[in-house]
Amino acid sequence: MKKCLITGVGGFVGRHLLRYFDGVEAGLREVLGIDLYPAAGVLTPQRFSYHFEQIDLAQLDLFTVLAEEFDPDWLIHLAGESSVSASWRDPDRCIMNNGNIISNILRFMRLRPMKYRSKCRMLAVGSSEVYGYGEAGERLEESHPRQPSNPYAVSRVYQEDRIQLDVKWQGLNIVSTRSFNHTGPGQSDRFVIPSFVRQLCNAKKNGQKSVQLKTGNIQLIRDFSDVRDVVRAYHLLLEHGQNGEIYNVCCGAGVSLFKIIEMLKEILNLDVTVEIDQALVRSGEPPIVVGSTEKIFRETGWIPQIPLEQTLRDMIQEQM
Amino acid sequence: MKKCLITGVGGFVGRHLLRYFDGVEAGLREVLGIDLYPAAGVLTPQRFSYHFEQIDLAQLDLFTVLAEEFDPDWLIHLAGESSVSASWRDPDRCIMNNGNIISNILRFMRLRPMKYRSKCRMLAVGSSEVYGYGEAGERLEESHPRQPSNPYAVSRVYQEDRIQLDVKWQGLNIVSTRSFNHTGPGQSDRFVIPSFVRQLCNAKKNGQKSVQLKTGNIQLIRDFSDVRDVVRAYHLLLEHGQNGEIYNVCCGAGVSLFKIIEMLKEILNLDVTVEIDQALVRSGEPPIVVGSTEKIFRETGWIPQIPLEQTLRDMIQEQM
Repeated sequence: MKKCLITGVGGFVGRHLLRYFDGVEAGLREVLGIDLYPAAGVLTPQRFSYHFEQIDLAQLDLFTVLAEEFDPDWLIHLAGESSVSASWRDPDRCIMNNGNIISNILRFMRLRPMKYRSKCRMLAVGSSEVYGYGEAGERLEESHPRQPSNPYAVSRVYQEDRIQLDVKWQGLNIVSTRSFNHTGPGQSDRFVIPSFVRQLCNAKKNGQKSVQLKTGNIQLIRDFSDVRDVVRAYHLLLEHGQNGEIYNVCCGAGVSLFKIIEMLKEILNLDVTVEIDQALVRSGEPPIVVGSTEKIFRETGWIPQIPLEQTLRDMIQEQM
Repeated sequence: MKKCLITGVGGFVGRHLLRYFDGVEAGLREVLGIDLYPAAGVLTPQRFSYHFEQIDLAQLDLFTVLAEEFDPDWLIHLAGESSVSASWRDPDRCIMNNGNIISNILRFMRLRPMKYRSKCRMLAVGSSEVYGYGEAGERLEESHPRQPSNPYAVSRVYQEDRIQLDVKWQGLNIVSTRSFNHTGPGQSDRFVIPSFVRQLCNAKKNGQKSVQLKTGNIQLIRDFSDVRDVVRAYHLLLEHGQNGEIYNVCCGAGVSLFKIIEMLKEILNLDVTVEIDQALVRSGEPPIVVGSTEKIFRETGWIPQIPLEQTLRDMIQEQM
């Protein structure tokens, strides 16, 4: 039976991950969740003992003491700034913060004598943002050159590179992801789909028949997965991923934000007109980002199971 | 007539760059050189006025005040840890230090209002180490994926990525290099060829007919240029390089360290036997790193002019 440390447990993915582990037999005995913020809305799991600590991962000493005492078999690293638009507001802060966090976690993992280091396996969640630009018709494979085009992406390139060094030369045991867009119930409406859902559900609740939706560029094509599929992928990667390897976590299919609005219209039976808000249009966003699922499927058997329409229905249900 | 700020002016390349600019008409009126160490061995140039300041670039305030007051047209960034083996002794320090330095330089360049920012052009010297591994028969092109395999290389990937952001979104004017191995008179014998030359010249001066040379892995194939060609490339890139672009600076031809020893034997007329010192063999060093010169030739017309044999002869002359 395993002990698992989860950083960023209070975030969107962290909360789904806890719920996922509480629903399957994953061999977990004890989970320590940590987060920078008080853990509002975290379920109390039944299947394993659960303990929460509110700490700042950038503070090395505090984290090291906690993590050493807990002595995890698995470390799932979800913490850090994850919003591209937030990273633009203070690029250096995002890069420094995410950089310090990964450096501190690696420092903890190197504290053990070399021969015990591989005992703790880390899943380091990263981002498809490291690719920068995809081409029409292209499914980005993991071997694709990285051209990070925003501060958040730069921080994730650094995370990948720093991890590769410690896997190769320090005997650490780490599987990394490049997670593409994912959404689902519980995501903050700082992100695009929850923002659409909230606006349309509010109109529906007000009895409106038609609604004007404020959006950025809705021509963008992205590869969206359901967060509940994504946390299952993380579990499979911990079980079957290869040390030092990086895996896309994605659907392998692109959908435009325009198409998503069409789907929401259909489900909610609303007339929607779109108003482009220039403040929401970020110049230089890549038009198309779609990933290849080949590697993760080949090595873990993971395939996403929840169709986007179901995801949207569940998000609507949460709001209504 | 231009004002030029050179960081790391006291290093191997910085000293050659000053000497180069003192020998050609490059349109320089004034040069401010800065370095972390006292500038031992720096020539006093005749062609332009020259001023030196000993400061630590990681100290933002001091650098900003100096650089703002000087108000350079060109900024040539050579400073930072440049030894792969030194970067292994304290990986986090190398990464943090080189990272802080580039962040501070970019912060200075962003201080001006947007419309004046492109007035100062920076040449950011980076490294072929970002590529990681080359294949036999392959000339690495700039589009090749980056797989940094040592801490120094990670710091240079970060430099590239951070620069790209500020070129795209902050209106900065920066040309970057991936400089491959370069050597020549004046290089520290922490580096491989000067270390060979010193050992062999000492034997020669002692009147020995034969000598045992301590080396690491001499099968390694690298792309060596003469530092005097390299500084000329830097000048051409400042004049003709494209903003935001990255250029290999290399010969386009690989030579093994074994072959270099053969050349030195020949020039010095010495019997040399090689003793592999395991302490000098760094595991995981890429066997072959050779670059493509196509882009820099196409866009600046630069081709290296000094054959390796001449470089070696000049290095020997310096020692004898």
